[in-house]
Amino acid sequence: MRVGVVHGPNLRLLGRREPGVYGTATLDEIDARIAALADELGVEIETFQSNHEGELLDHFETVADRVDGFVVNAAALTHTSVALRDALAGVGRPFVEVHLSNTAAREGFRHHSFLAPVAAGVVYGFGVDSYLLGLRGLVARLGTSARSGAPHD
Amino acid sequence: MRVGVVHGPNLRLLGRREPGVYGTATLDEIDARIAALADELGVEIETFQSNHEGELLDHFETVADRVDGFVVNAAALTHTSVALRDALAGVGRPFVEVHLSNTAAREGFRHHSFLAPVAAGVVYGFGVDSYLLGLRGLVARLGTSARSGAPHD
Amino acid sequence: MRVGVVHGPNLRLLGRREPGVYGTATLDEIDARIAALADELGVEIETFQSNHEGELLDHFETVADRVDGFVVNAAALTHTSVALRDALAGVGRPFVEVHLSNTAAREGFRHHSFLAPVAAGVVYGFGVDSYLLGLRGLVARLGTSARSGAPHD
Amino acid sequence: MRVGVVHGPNLRLLGRREPGVYGTATLDEIDARIAALADELGVEIETFQSNHEGELLDHFETVADRVDGFVVNAAALTHTSVALRDALAGVGRPFVEVHLSNTAAREGFRHHSFLAPVAAGVVYGFGVDSYLLGLRGLVARLGTSARSGAPHD
Amino acid sequence: MRVGVVHGPNLRLLGRREPGVYGTATLDEIDARIAALADELGVEIETFQSNHEGELLDHFETVADRVDGFVVNAAALTHTSVALRDALAGVGRPFVEVHLSNTAAREGFRHHSFLAPVAAGVVYGFGVDSYLLGLRGLVARLGTSARSGAPHD
Amino acid sequence: MRVGVVHGPNLRLLGRREPGVYGTATLDEIDARIAALADELGVEIETFQSNHEGELLDHFETVADRVDGFVVNAAALTHTSVALRDALAGVGRPFVEVHLSNTAAREGFRHHSFLAPVAAGVVYGFGVDSYLLGLRGLVARLGTSARSGAPHD
Amino acid sequence: MRVGVVHGPNLRLLGRREPGVYGTATLDEIDARIAALADELGVEIETFQSNHEGELLDHFETVADRVDGFVVNAAALTHTSVALRDALAGVGRPFVEVHLSNTAAREGFRHHSFLAPVAAGVVYGFGVDSYLLGLRGLVARLGTSARSGAPHD
Amino acid sequence: MRVGVVHGPNLRLLGRREPGVYGTATLDEIDARIAALADELGVEIETFQSNHEGELLDHFETVADRVDGFVVNAAALTHTSVALRDALAGVGRPFVEVHLSNTAAREGFRHHSFLAPVAAGVVYGFGVDSYLLGLRGLVARLGTSARSGAPHD
Amino acid sequence: MRVGVVHGPNLRLLGRREPGVYGTATLDEIDARIAALADELGVEIETFQSNHEGELLDHFETVADRVDGFVVNAAALTHTSVALRDALAGVGRPFVEVHLSNTAAREGFRHHSFLAPVAAGVVYGFGVDSYLLGLRGLVARLGTSARSGAPHD
Amino acid sequence: MRVGVVHGPNLRLLGRREPGVYGTATLDEIDARIAALADELGVEIETFQSNHEGELLDHFETVADRVDGFVVNAAALTHTSVALRDALAGVGRPFVEVHLSNTAAREGFRHHSFLAPVAAGVVYGFGVDSYLLGLRGLVARLGTSARSGAPHD
Amino acid sequence: MRVGVVHGPNLRLLGRREPGVYGTATLDEIDARIAALADELGVEIETFQSNHEGELLDHFETVADRVDGFVVNAAALTHTSVALRDALAGVGRPFVEVHLSNTAAREGFRHHSFLAPVAAGVVYGFGVDSYLLGLRGLVARLGTSARSGAPHD
Amino acid sequence: MRVGVVHGPNLRLLGRREPGVYGTATLDEIDARIAALADELGVEIETFQSNHEGELLDHFETVADRVDGFVVNAAALTHTSVALRDALAGVGRPFVEVHLSNTAAREGFRHHSFLAPVAAGVVYGFGVDSYLLGLRGLVARLGTSARSGAPHD
Repeated sequence: MRVGVVHGPNLRLLGRREPGVYGTATLDEIDARIAALADELGVEIETFQSNHEGELLDHFETVADRVDGFVVNAAALTHTSVALRDALAGVGRPFVEVHLSNTAAREGFRHHSFLAPVAAGVVYGFGVDSYLLGLRGLVARLGTSARSGAPHD
Repeated sequence: MRVGVVHGPNLRLLGRREPGVYGTATLDEIDARIAALADELGVEIETFQSNHEGELLDHFETVADRVDGFVVNAAALTHTSVALRDALAGVGRPFVEVHLSNTAAREGFRHHSFLAPVAAGVVYGFGVDSYLLGLRGLVARLGTSARSGAPHD
Repeated sequence: MRVGVVHGPNLRLLGRREPGVYGTATLDEIDARIAALADELGVEIETFQSNHEGELLDHFETVADRVDGFVVNAAALTHTSVALRDALAGVGRPFVEVHLSNTAAREGFRHHSFLAPVAAGVVYGFGVDSYLLGLRGLVARLGTSARSGAPHD
Repeated sequence: MRVGVVHGPNLRLLGRREPGVYGTATLDEIDARIAALADELGVEIETFQSNHEGELLDHFETVADRVDGFVVNAAALTHTSVALRDALAGVGRPFVEVHLSNTAAREGFRHHSFLAPVAAGVVYGFGVDSYLLGLRGLVARLGTSARSGAPHD
Repeated sequence: MRVGVVHGPNLRLLGRREPGVYGTATLDEIDARIAALADELGVEIETFQSNHEGELLDHFETVADRVDGFVVNAAALTHTSVALRDALAGVGRPFVEVHLSNTAAREGFRHHSFLAPVAAGVVYGFGVDSYLLGLRGLVARLGTSARSGAPHD
Repeated sequence: MRVGVVHGPNLRLLGRREPGVYGTATLDEIDARIAALADELGVEIETFQSNHEGELLDHFETVADRVDGFVVNAAALTHTSVALRDALAGVGRPFVEVHLSNTAAREGFRHHSFLAPVAAGVVYGFGVDSYLLGLRGLVARLGTSARSGAPHD
Repeated sequence: MRVGVVHGPNLRLLGRREPGVYGTATLDEIDARIAALADELGVEIETFQSNHEGELLDHFETVADRVDGFVVNAAALTHTSVALRDALAGVGRPFVEVHLSNTAAREGFRHHSFLAPVAAGVVYGFGVDSYLLGLRGLVARLGTSARSGAPHD
Repeated sequence: MRVGVVHGPNLRLLGRREPGVYGTATLDEIDARIAALADELGVEIETFQSNHEGELLDHFETVADRVDGFVVNAAALTHTSVALRDALAGVGRPFVEVHLSNTAAREGFRHHSFLAPVAAGVVYGFGVDSYLLGLRGLVARLGTSARSGAPHD
Repeated sequence: MRVGVVHGPNLRLLGRREPGVYGTATLDEIDARIAALADELGVEIETFQSNHEGELLDHFETVADRVDGFVVNAAALTHTSVALRDALAGVGRPFVEVHLSNTAAREGFRHHSFLAPVAAGVVYGFGVDSYLLGLRGLVARLGTSARSGAPHD
Repeated sequence: MRVGVVHGPNLRLLGRREPGVYGTATLDEIDARIAALADELGVEIETFQSNHEGELLDHFETVADRVDGFVVNAAALTHTSVALRDALAGVGRPFVEVHLSNTAAREGFRHHSFLAPVAAGVVYGFGVDSYLLGLRGLVARLGTSARSGAPHD
Repeated sequence: MRVGVVHGPNLRLLGRREPGVYGTATLDEIDARIAALADELGVEIETFQSNHEGELLDHFETVADRVDGFVVNAAALTHTSVALRDALAGVGRPFVEVHLSNTAAREGFRHHSFLAPVAAGVVYGFGVDSYLLGLRGLVARLGTSARSGAPHD
Repeated sequence: MRVGVVHGPNLRLLGRREPGVYGTATLDEIDARIAALADELGVEIETFQSNHEGELLDHFETVADRVDGFVVNAAALTHTSVALRDALAGVGRPFVEVHLSNTAAREGFRHHSFLAPVAAGVVYGFGVDSYLLGLRGLVARLGTSARSGAPHD
């Protein structure tokens, strides 16, 4: 089983940017924690970060054939990018949407996600653990599908 | 560490009610899976279900002193109950909001949660796994707080 | 054929409460008229009233197995209770929504019903006759289904 | 007692048009069922169909003096015609609004009725039975008024 | 100078329909008062009433070439008919919008007029006098244009 | 019969201000035309202009006892002043709302009037003639009331 | 004179729950202050608290016959319960709505009250004094009605 | 193959009405250009114009059995007529919606079409060419269906 | 302790203006009742009325240094004046917002108050007693602050 | 004559992505059909695809000087990109907006286009034929402008 | 060159009022800084402050003839006064809108300005420097116009 | 002191694109004027333009460590890019938002800025001078902060 982990715009600022909102972990530390859990779960990981919507779209298009699903923190693009939604719906792989912060407790424009309605599941508000829970959830979902040959819902 | 697991209205119908949306697991089966994970994590569980908003409020008020946090699937009340929000904010224990289905992919009135803005984290769309991921997330959060003596965000 | 008749909150006030809006018949008089029509139609009736949303949910859950459908006047809960909608959709029995008054001619918040989109039919504005017409409509619907083995729409 | 039954636009398409939504009965079959019930209730019926809003307005203006009330399925005009509302309010006869389908379960623009706030009662979702229940409801209403000399609400 | 006076749907009901809102004058009496004023002002009048939007459109198309402007009470169509607006804007004659009642004091859906933004002027709330004031206003406008060869605003 | 004519803010700018919208007549010229018509109708006129909402309120309070009604061009305050509405409703004299321009054809915030729902009638879009038509309409209204002792609507 | 004092959901948490918002007084202390004022005013008090909407409805139905009015802090139900509004309107006793906090300065969903439009008066933002002022206001109102035999407004 | 071309209200004004918006071609010239293209494509054409919504409905009902699809310029009715939508959806023939002008660049009320969601395709903004492109598009669509026996989407 | 009592626009009309809404007491009678209660509470009163928003702003600016708080009935300006809110927030004295009528039961535009979110408390619907309750509430608040040196909330 | 054909994000997924919505043709097949028609019409074509909004903007800026107009399928960016609208409006070349699917029949956020108000024409819902019709429409438009030296509308 | 500097309501409170929002400079200090810059730029200044909307309107009307433009901080009236907009548009002098605070970061009702759409430019969020930047911007604008004899945009 | 000047999408079109809206200056000319002022103020400038949101994000991330603040004209991205807001808030440098045109006077979708609420100040409508005023404002702000060691607001 192989999972793509995708970080959207501005996430390289982590640790530097508004630590009251996003915590003090850097993106490298987050990736290390994801890798450790992937090892534990016996899953291969392919990680990607970009500030460019277009690169994210190219990435989904390219990598979809060699992964079974995605864990995606689309950051600000969550709330504005129909293109990302179309890419994720279009490549035909289940994905989990994650956020570090509790977006429901922040500005109104962060309450709506273009991705959530086409996601396999959503996890937010747990800091770095959002990624880890999302990965576990995706793996469970992929395992179920693999066993049953049928989607859960 | 002790965690309250709370099931809101109509969840006794699980397995019978709209399996296309909610899956075929019964509430007993869900509780058994939660108990198994709790054992694995070394956490005590106290489970409660009610169709009555008032009983849920009474329960939070009563049980808050003997648990460290809650995993809550408030079901339909998620979208309509300010009282539940006030109780959860008022009893001073972190809680995780969970849903079996992907509420963002359903009717518009299920897209808003009165609970999410005061939750420690939110997990939805993973079926029964939403509870398990939510429990893991809460335990991680409680562990962090215990170690650092300070809230995560 | 067996039909559950369910009266929601405040309906015990009938005859006392705002007779200009709701008429002068008491709930007992309404139940008597329903019973008379049920006799005429050869239908068994099981009647229930509660001011408690939770009791209504418990009731639908419990009684669904022994009735073929429901006539429901959810009163104020019509406009606010997603839980009631979920219960009625969940128990898998057709139901008819009825109201004594013309809710479309009253305050704006009474114009929306959470129940109507999942109802088999809706009748309102006829006073006590709303119940009687609703019962006739439900019986016709149940009869059709019984004969054809297939839902009408 | 004499009742006008009025069918609005496109209802001659019944049986041909979207049977999944409207059923397979033709307008003639519906009229036959209404006539049969009218006989049973001892009521005279005057039936009218038009695709023309203006003809419907002319009809209400002309026929109002020789009927005691109307059963009206205004179809699509329900949601768009202030003129129909004004005619029905203006001719001074109680009327019942009926629809074959459950308009509350369809597109958003079908959830609002310009007629309902000035109707004596509303029935929808029962297929052809909506007309029959509406006729019964109107007759009950007219009977009550006749006996008491005073409007019900 | 020649002016078309146009009465929209349901106005033949005047005197019969909701006298508390529209007064007790019949359409014939209104037309007589308009004719008297037209005589006084030395203006020819061509009067038309229809319940049919299509006939009103045909009328504007046909009669535009032989009148200098219109006084229009479009009644309910004021609030719903883009076609009427397009006809009036299209035939290239100034028109005055009039209403018997104070539409701003009635239901919310009567507060918007599709015609007003393309009208030369608007008069409402004066009962029958709305027509008379509207005719005076139109004649003044036409006189100004005639004298100056340029539109007023 | 005595009528108060009231001009709201910025109307002293007339002739200078945006002639494309308001025409080239000055306020003095408007007042002269109103006076001429008042003479013709045998009505006394009391004219007042202020840029101060408070002075307008004081004026209505003071002058109400010695006039039979008002012709009011509240200009910009039409769209923002609840106080003006309360004053006009409070002093117990019928008033006519007038505007020089066609407010329905201008910016969206000019489409709503706080005064119109409590006005006896409304005239706009006729330039200076709006005042003259409004005065005629008010006089007709006052004459009717005087004769019949009862309000028109 | 006898007054029902009713506390809605979560108010037993007072002193424990968010003291920055609700102050440090417990519900017992509040009740003691109300009782002291009632003694001073010569009014009998009947106090009730429930977290259950249904119990509150039952209470209003039962107790209405033996009290002259109510002081009601419906807490979170203020913003969501049409049933509570219907009960209070239905039992035919004047009531005063009170809140400890300034609800207008809090989240948007607390700005609307279903109860206020049918209340005799509203008091909020004064902490415990809101109850005391509400009681005084109700007693004044009841005294006025008693003396004049007619409602104030 | 046979195609119905339908022109809605006010289109006989073309060439006379607002040439800045609609161009200078008359309806006859448009029909001639459509006929020429139909010849080229080997398609029979049946053309109809009416200012009457009802006549348009009657026409669709009558003609549907002898054409394979429609090219429809519903003009102002596009934005207001649910009845037209129901007719077009009901007669079971694919249709293309066309407009001469760019409706997205005009008043807000022209941005919504009741027809578009049930159309096979939409073309607007090309002047007379909108009809020609629409006819080509419909013919292509009909040809595809004919060949494959299955709808395109 | 010294309290400013401020009456906004149109309140000199009291007793004359819409007695069904505002009661029959004149402003002098209200002031006398306030003075009597102030005497009883041992509070000095400084009373001010103006129809001019600007004078109210000047007054708050001038008088703030010599009073401990305000009781304010801003009347119509409550719903429209940001300037009044800024003045009251700016002068640094707690104030209580009062209204004679139940604004929540009147027109929609009276449901919002610009002042309430920055008020120490709000009282409305009690007629003249609203002022008296507001004064009591303010005095209680000022007493508490004086004793504790800290604001209540 | 030279035309730029521009494909926006995710269109390389065609044939793979949601064939129920977008059909089974690949982007290469679409480009081949466009090329064939261009040959037939004697037009040169310059084709470009990018998933990057920025590359699309760069492209319009660069290529505008060597083409006479554009056929643009902006895909998801249609609904979110003001920058694309500004580029297309800024480079001073007419363009036609096309979509494969009927966007009016899909999710609400696809009903609004930022491009349409500045487009020369719009074609959608015809599958691959949308491009072909759009190209024909653009060529007709360019031909007209060339001949007349003046814009069509 | 001569510039009017206009301060709206409550600005005399500066230094006293909410220093966290508005800073600690008094209005006199602000005027001194403006005067110093005016000297540097060789511009004459005429300064005016009023809490009265009406006085501001009178001032613009009076002073417009002797200044070349205005720098205006309308404070709270920015968000509520159509009259101020009409005055500024009416007197025919360019003006710059300035605010001390960042109004976009404050309450929602401060996000809309009635003045901005008719302003020559807008500056806000720089504290006292907003006035200085606004004055520089106005002078640059006036210089450009003077030189070119034509407005910039 | 060092300032980053950032130009968003389509600004290379300046001078070519819609000169009626944006003026005739090219981006090079604007940069020259900024450089001249920077020299005068003794500030170093680092200028960047991109049509790619992602490049702008990369730029802010990279350059933030070597500049003290930014002057940003985000052009169309102002209204749509949450990512840009997050980057600017995340890099921890004050920035000024500038626009050439008066965005408040243009299409509704240009009235909202995602950047303004986190900006140090906003300047728009002055053409090229908006940049110059913005640079002056930023320098003044940075100077103040430097001197006081504390943010202005």
